[in-house]
Amino acid sequence: MPELRKDPVTDRWVIIAADRARPSEFSRETVPNPVPTPACPLCPGNEGRTPPEVLAFRSGSGPNEPGWHIRVVPNKYPVLKIEGDLNREGEGLFDKMDGVGAHEMIIETPDHTKFLTELDEKQVEDIFHAFRDRINDLKRDLRLRYILIFKNHGSAAGGKLEHSHSQLIALPVVPKRVIEEMDGARHYYDFKDRCVFCDMIRQERREQTRVVSESERFIVLEPYAPRSPFETWILPRKHESHFETSDAALLQDLSWVMRATLRKIGKVLERPPYNFVLHTAPVQEASLPHYHWHIEIVPKLTKVAGFEWGTGFYINPTPPEESAQFLREAGLG
Amino acid sequence: MPELRKDPVTDRWVIIAADRARPSEFSRETVPNPVPTPACPLCPGNEGRTPPEVLAFRSGSGPNEPGWHIRVVPNKYPVLKIEGDLNREGEGLFDKMDGVGAHEMIIETPDHTKFLTELDEKQVEDIFHAFRDRINDLKRDLRLRYILIFKNHGSAAGGKLEHSHSQLIALPVVPKRVIEEMDGARHYYDFKDRCVFCDMIRQERREQTRVVSESERFIVLEPYAPRSPFETWILPRKHESHFETSDAALLQDLSWVMRATLRKIGKVLERPPYNFVLHTAPVQEASLPHYHWHIEIVPKLTKVAGFEWGTGFYINPTPPEESAQFLREAGLG
Repeated sequence: MPELRKDPVTDRWVIIAADRARPSEFSRETVPNPVPTPACPLCPGNEGRTPPEVLAFRSGSGPNEPGWHIRVVPNKYPVLKIEGDLNREGEGLFDKMDGVGAHEMIIETPDHTKFLTELDEKQVEDIFHAFRDRINDLKRDLRLRYILIFKNHGSAAGGKLEHSHSQLIALPVVPKRVIEEMDGARHYYDFKDRCVFCDMIRQERREQTRVVSESERFIVLEPYAPRSPFETWILPRKHESHFETSDAALLQDLSWVMRATLRKIGKVLERPPYNFVLHTAPVQEASLPHYHWHIEIVPKLTKVAGFEWGTGFYINPTPPEESAQFLREAGLG
Repeated sequence: MPELRKDPVTDRWVIIAADRARPSEFSRETVPNPVPTPACPLCPGNEGRTPPEVLAFRSGSGPNEPGWHIRVVPNKYPVLKIEGDLNREGEGLFDKMDGVGAHEMIIETPDHTKFLTELDEKQVEDIFHAFRDRINDLKRDLRLRYILIFKNHGSAAGGKLEHSHSQLIALPVVPKRVIEEMDGARHYYDFKDRCVFCDMIRQERREQTRVVSESERFIVLEPYAPRSPFETWILPRKHESHFETSDAALLQDLSWVMRATLRKIGKVLERPPYNFVLHTAPVQEASLPHYHWHIEIVPKLTKVAGFEWGTGFYINPTPPEESAQFLREAGLG
């Protein structure tokens, strides 16, 4: 019997159709390591092919020169631009505003051939430092209401450039799904006086069936109502609403956990395309007792079709209890 | 300058990034006509490979025999099943219920090699009759709260069987996105005492920039804030909340308009993969003054990536004013 499960934060229903005997419900697709190409705008030596950097970690060399190990640049084809006024306007029934915001690329390594999971621990740590520093810099612009950090790995996951990078988009409005998640968490808090994510962590640690791993400061788990097989969340064990308040010790632990988790997923699913999204509170809000930042990793195994599109109602052939076991058995990656 | 536009019903923001000079922002992929295969479970002669039919339009022959021109069967691998009780249960923090519902395939033609757009008008009309008849039959089961009809055309759009078919899923809960759309429409109605879709039709007819075509009873338009290039809506000009109340004259006009619209999209975009979803009011509700049923067609041209996934905030490189013009110029298809 298929089972309907509800996500306690967003109220999103998911059908866990574990007995759906379709032989290969999800397409396995391995993302191959990129082959070096002289034209890559993200490679050292080609710094002139991107807009000037806004942040870099480097030793010795000058700005926009080789020698960096992390480099952050504005997207050459930004979906939003930092210049201009935030004009809001009506068109009869409709509302629009100018596309003020920021769109940046975090180049995770100078090495064109390497994936995030293949970088050493210190390098991954620096990526998270770059995320934090960029958020803290951009949030001083009070027009920017939300900053989203995400990664599209592999073309099936929307990745367009092969060279390993993440993206940052800063928006003049808080997106609907974020409002939805915030509202759901606030609703729970109003009712129980406790953070729903903290309660979730407590219950998952007690039950253990959906826990993948734990470190000193983080827990990795398969959520109760995952939209997609092997959807995986990484949550700090201590309550905190804003990622950008993280200290160096937390970022160090996070980078270790993130790398290990992505390696486990890579091992079990044969290095699939994936997206990860940093879920964090709106930057202009003070610390929130009801919201708990975390990272959601979604391997791209099933195609989102008309049904999901029309309803926000997901069909998932893999129960999270099963995927958690697979990931636990994958060892340390 | 990119523009942010808000959908007046769902409050979903879309970035229209028309000056995003990426050479080919969307991947063109043509869905090839299927080649006949003796193993196809949807072909005449293979009726035994599907569960027994629940509806068929045929001349002469008996049930589950060749001779039909439309056939509706339960999905062999249903995501929900009609048998069983609707048990609701808690698991600590979490909520679940048994997966009671229905999952059916509407086989649109006996001809394995033909697409919906290549069928004659009468055949397309009968497909819509089948949609209506199945909804009216299933809604008598009061456990079923929402009935979704949709089509995944081409594997990039989630289509798994090549033989032309649509799907029906009947659910024991109203999905979140539907609630969201209903709530948005009700909110507008409470404020203005008018249906937001009726207002939209009036404004679009006056402005004409986003109108693709009009028939006696329907209007075809590109919505103001489309999630994806060439997203196209077909709305009845006369207010009605429930698709299943449509009479034969309305269905005849609809099938003509639908076929012509899909042909236009096919002509301009080289027969792309697409999804369509019937948006209609929850089946157990009486006629609603604030909701207006319609069909949303979304060609699958861009990949939904981490950004969209994380935010419900879509990036669309094609302004609807432009796509409407392309479709108008495509002629009658």
